[in-house]
Amino acid sequence: MTKHPCRQLTCEIISIGDEMTSGARLDTNAQWLSRRVGELGVVVKFHSTVGDTLSDNVDVFRIAASRADIVVATGGLGPTRDDLTREALSIMVDRPLEMRDSAMQHIESMFAKRHREMPERNRVQAMFPIGSDEIFNPQGTAPGIDLKVERDGQMPSRIFALPGVPAEMVRMFDETVAPRIMQQSGGGSRISHAVMKFFGVGESEMEQRLGEMISRDREPRVGITVSGATISLRITATADTDETCAAMIAMTREEILKLVPEYYFGDGESFEQQHAVEATLRARDESLCVIELGRAALLGDWFASLGDSPAYRGGISLATTDDMVGLLDVANTADAMTEIQRRFRSDWVLMVDAYPPLDAKPETPLPNADVNLVVRAPGGKCHEKTIRIGGHPDILHARIGKAAMAWLREVLE
Amino acid sequence: MTKHPCRQLTCEIISIGDEMTSGARLDTNAQWLSRRVGELGVVVKFHSTVGDTLSDNVDVFRIAASRADIVVATGGLGPTRDDLTREALSIMVDRPLEMRDSAMQHIESMFAKRHREMPERNRVQAMFPIGSDEIFNPQGTAPGIDLKVERDGQMPSRIFALPGVPAEMVRMFDETVAPRIMQQSGGGSRISHAVMKFFGVGESEMEQRLGEMISRDREPRVGITVSGATISLRITATADTDETCAAMIAMTREEILKLVPEYYFGDGESFEQQHAVEATLRARDESLCVIELGRAALLGDWFASLGDSPAYRGGISLATTDDMVGLLDVANTADAMTEIQRRFRSDWVLMVDAYPPLDAKPETPLPNADVNLVVRAPGGKCHEKTIRIGGHPDILHARIGKAAMAWLREVLE
Repeated sequence: MTKHPCRQLTCEIISIGDEMTSGARLDTNAQWLSRRVGELGVVVKFHSTVGDTLSDNVDVFRIAASRADIVVATGGLGPTRDDLTREALSIMVDRPLEMRDSAMQHIESMFAKRHREMPERNRVQAMFPIGSDEIFNPQGTAPGIDLKVERDGQMPSRIFALPGVPAEMVRMFDETVAPRIMQQSGGGSRISHAVMKFFGVGESEMEQRLGEMISRDREPRVGITVSGATISLRITATADTDETCAAMIAMTREEILKLVPEYYFGDGESFEQQHAVEATLRARDESLCVIELGRAALLGDWFASLGDSPAYRGGISLATTDDMVGLLDVANTADAMTEIQRRFRSDWVLMVDAYPPLDAKPETPLPNADVNLVVRAPGGKCHEKTIRIGGHPDILHARIGKAAMAWLREVLE
Repeated sequence: MTKHPCRQLTCEIISIGDEMTSGARLDTNAQWLSRRVGELGVVVKFHSTVGDTLSDNVDVFRIAASRADIVVATGGLGPTRDDLTREALSIMVDRPLEMRDSAMQHIESMFAKRHREMPERNRVQAMFPIGSDEIFNPQGTAPGIDLKVERDGQMPSRIFALPGVPAEMVRMFDETVAPRIMQQSGGGSRISHAVMKFFGVGESEMEQRLGEMISRDREPRVGITVSGATISLRITATADTDETCAAMIAMTREEILKLVPEYYFGDGESFEQQHAVEATLRARDESLCVIELGRAALLGDWFASLGDSPAYRGGISLATTDDMVGLLDVANTADAMTEIQRRFRSDWVLMVDAYPPLDAKPETPLPNADVNLVVRAPGGKCHEKTIRIGGHPDILHARIGKAAMAWLREVLE
């Protein structure tokens, strides 16, 4: 565990486009970039959003370059008259735009690949302020711009201008911008990430349990984010070789697992509890079906979305246990579960009884309700648990579905 | 249809908090405020986000006041040492903070209502820069601040500082800030909104069909937003009386319905196609169940979430038609639908066959796939339709579910 060696760089993120200032579109690029830049040990101090007006763009770039060492901008690199980033940068540093042949060839090759003729207006995408560098865009026609802006008595501010299309922006940042920032910050030249997932613990308890692990100047850095009651820990290591990064991450992973073993369920940005359940069942050559009662049916969708898995047989959603008993033409709930297990040819049954309605006012937390979770095992044995759960209507049903999966995982173990 | 009479005001939105600059939290306040401010005829030109550092806050407020007539800020009004908005505003206008008794009483009453003693540190929330006005917060302890900042040769810039908690911010903006902005802009003193919902048409076609209706200087204003292929048109009227607003909105609604009658399905921000289906079925005293095959099961959740409705009986999700035939122990798909209709005691059955898997790379649009939609009517007659549908993995399943409901609505009519 080494401390980061160099002066802390500062950063500003700029988002460009009328669709953002007008509120027509939610800006998710700025959040994504803030996380990634922060993982490199650079402090993001400002975000700025500006519409498609040239003078406003020039002003925003000027202010950013004066107060941040690194500026990452998205948007304004398309081929239309609304796309002003090239021109704004050129005005700001008072250097004309020049045609860059390498960029022009790339743009032409992108059109050739799609068997389309290049419209004349796309030529403008190959224009760069004199003295700036190109940022290769493997997926689109808009190359990015890497421009140093001189400042009195300070190191130059470095502007990275990227397209606003998230897929293009993400890849260009990871492949080109991040290594250049790391080089500038004097850290290692390689970067690796790992994401660990947890459920069943609140954010503040998690922070407390992790203690020093999440401090800003720890190396590798550990970042914590929460989405619908699932906690992600993102470990970021920078070093001179990929092997050193991997070793650093492995050590940090072990430390984390020692501190909070009981809530951990798997690895990977998009790995959710349904993936953990599916992996366990698949390893045992067993299968699952779900019954969801009440005013939601989230598990059915989550498990169905897993892809073509023999471990998930299907799901039923109904309003009440009476409906379930009626549907299967049996005497009671227990018989209904047996019948469902048989008809779905499923080893396990998971039942949520029942999701409460959300008809409270939006934004008002809902009072606690009792929700029964039942897991029927292959032999027919039923495991039951009642949870008391309330909270914000936006995530209450998701929390219940996730608590049901956590209970199923406990029984499976 | 009258043109807006006065000079166009400009606005900057400021979001305050380390959790935003670090990317730990996504800023949704700025988008919400941008839309609302835009509806008042004020052009939002900039968003700025700043962390919890005093000098940075002062700088950001200074820049905003210099370039915008109206500034709406959120965050930094809590009782802790991280909450710096009061102090930043005081430094910026060079006027000390004073204790405001009315605010103090409100804060004390909020604690009394919750039967809790007020911690000493909450007193700071009653401090205001001399000469500023209070913005009443009916839901929390943090009052907002309404502060005029003098500018050379221009009208003063007006700063509205609100808490970052969305529920408090929303209500304070609608109840106090919006009327004050309207007063300043010289428009009417009353404001009304209506939202119309559409499905089955793309955003650009919608814009073309609406033509002049969505121009910025039209009154009432019509704003267009898209969420998962559902289009919302938001009509905003300002006038001197609520009656005039209502009449203006009614006229605009009629004009819109003349231009795009075929895609309209209902009114209200949170009104979705499942609500339209439910209302139709309920009016006829009929009911529905859904069968979802393949790698998703969204309709089950959407319909279940409707609340306690006799019009929705329940849903089944399975991988394939073979599984469905097996589950019900019948000879073929047609018999399976009959059996499901009988067992669910449902008048109508809607089947999606089948949601394609999403296992392509994220961010890569999926190729078109054929999806069969079947509606079984009360007499047993089946209406079928095949849609070819592809697109971004994030919304593809939702688009299929929504297309299925659109088809059901067509058959119901």
